Amino acid sequence: MNLELALRMTEAAVKQAFREGAAISVAVVDEGGNLVSFQRMEGAEISGPVLAPGKAYTAVALRRPTSELAALTAPGGELAGLAGGRFVCFGGGVPLRSGHATGDRVVGGVGVSGGTVAQDVACAEAAESVWRTR
Amino acid sequence: MNLELALRMTEAAVKQAFREGAAISVAVVDEGGNLVSFQRMEGAEISGPVLAPGKAYTAVALRRPTSELAALTAPGGELAGLAGGRFVCFGGGVPLRSGHATGDRVVGGVGVSGGTVAQDVACAEAAESVWRTR
Amino acid sequence: MNLELALRMTEAAVKQAFREGAAISVAVVDEGGNLVSFQRMEGAEISGPVLAPGKAYTAVALRRPTSELAALTAPGGELAGLAGGRFVCFGGGVPLRSGHATGDRVVGGVGVSGGTVAQDVACAEAAESVWRTR
Amino acid sequence: MNLELALRMTEAAVKQAFREGAAISVAVVDEGGNLVSFQRMEGAEISGPVLAPGKAYTAVALRRPTSELAALTAPGGELAGLAGGRFVCFGGGVPLRSGHATGDRVVGGVGVSGGTVAQDVACAEAAESVWRTR
Repeated sequence: MNLELALRMTEAAVKQAFREGAAISVAVVDEGGNLVSFQRMEGAEISGPVLAPGKAYTAVALRRPTSELAALTAPGGELAGLAGGRFVCFGGGVPLRSGHATGDRVVGGVGVSGGTVAQDVACAEAAESVWRTR
Repeated sequence: MNLELALRMTEAAVKQAFREGAAISVAVVDEGGNLVSFQRMEGAEISGPVLAPGKAYTAVALRRPTSELAALTAPGGELAGLAGGRFVCFGGGVPLRSGHATGDRVVGGVGVSGGTVAQDVACAEAAESVWRTR
Repeated sequence: MNLELALRMTEAAVKQAFREGAAISVAVVDEGGNLVSFQRMEGAEISGPVLAPGKAYTAVALRRPTSELAALTAPGGELAGLAGGRFVCFGGGVPLRSGHATGDRVVGGVGVSGGTVAQDVACAEAAESVWRTR
Repeated sequence: MNLELALRMTEAAVKQAFREGAAISVAVVDEGGNLVSFQRMEGAEISGPVLAPGKAYTAVALRRPTSELAALTAPGGELAGLAGGRFVCFGGGVPLRSGHATGDRVVGGVGVSGGTVAQDVACAEAAESVWRTR
């Protein structure tokens, strides 16, 4: 992960947010879950500085999109009750992988918050597609 | 609880993880819920340093395997809403008891995180069986 | 405060860091102390995501440059013992004011961390001068 | 950083502690400040699980031995008032560098707590010398 790439991903997420009519916050973290960049759009909620980095961290920490965690952390799910602290377990966080082959590593994550969950997911995926085609 | 025994338990958990093809973190805590040992295997998630000690603490704090807490902490359950902070309420944490007779005490706990919950439970139980046959 | 201006301030801070030969993190917060933007340069310390937003918050919260807080928070000082939590009480945080007249308000803050304190202050002031001449 | 190396470093620290007649906790963290291993010796204080990982994190986060931070964080020092949260700013934490050439990176840290600060430093340095001669 590096800042230049993080900013390009952020730009893609913000562009998607404009398309969606949403005001979002976008966070990018590195392999260790530490913040690399953050942007909160004009008009986006003050929960963004908490939730967007949280989703990005969670996507790295659990190595999967946070959208997959909603079911897993719901009552009866395998990770029931996980959430809280740095763990944000609903859609909008996406892990960034070093490659597409078996055995690739998670080397960062992007997290989006501020729109509906569907909008957050769309924006995070727009960011992630910049990563994949880097 | 002592370090030598904690390390033998950890070794058993790690050996089980290799058998399962999982990369895990293993934590052992004492009677006070305070960490005695922790190991994160090569390639295991960075959530391990949070979740494995959390499961070990929770197993001591509530004196039962964390796998039993899923139902209890679900909506309508006796401990609904408990999870969060140091409480991790899904499988992978096992309390360590001083004996098998009635009235025995919980004198420590082991917590495993990184595999599927079933794998985590299997690894924690491998650790606990070292304890039982100490 | 808005994102566009926050990014221009950040750019000025980063440009100054290159001049100084430092690798820094830059945070900009709004009137509520909530993060608007954050950037960590390639090679900057992982303390940046904690200290830069902390300095920006502190500059808003106490309405003065954090460089002035060293004496105030020292033993015997008026704010002795303040540091900790979100309060970072050494140089690198600067409040952003709505005007130059008496009675103007603090409407945001910038915080820089990663270089020496003198470098951090220089970078934060470079950001603040963008604000003043906006 | 990897677990096998972390355990060898830990062993060296514990061996030094026996020589010093101290009972210590030893933590090793990776580049992102996330825990890789932790051991608390028989009889060591329950502050160890907080302070040893804190020192290891701090050594990575600020890229210097925590023993250098005592003066820097004292009243009048450049980082006056830093401490609290994950930052532990007295001796016993040492950063681990990827090489000896200019431009080498900090890729982990070791933290020791439980003895006098001089003992903690000696134990952390024993661990670090394993790293340097790896």
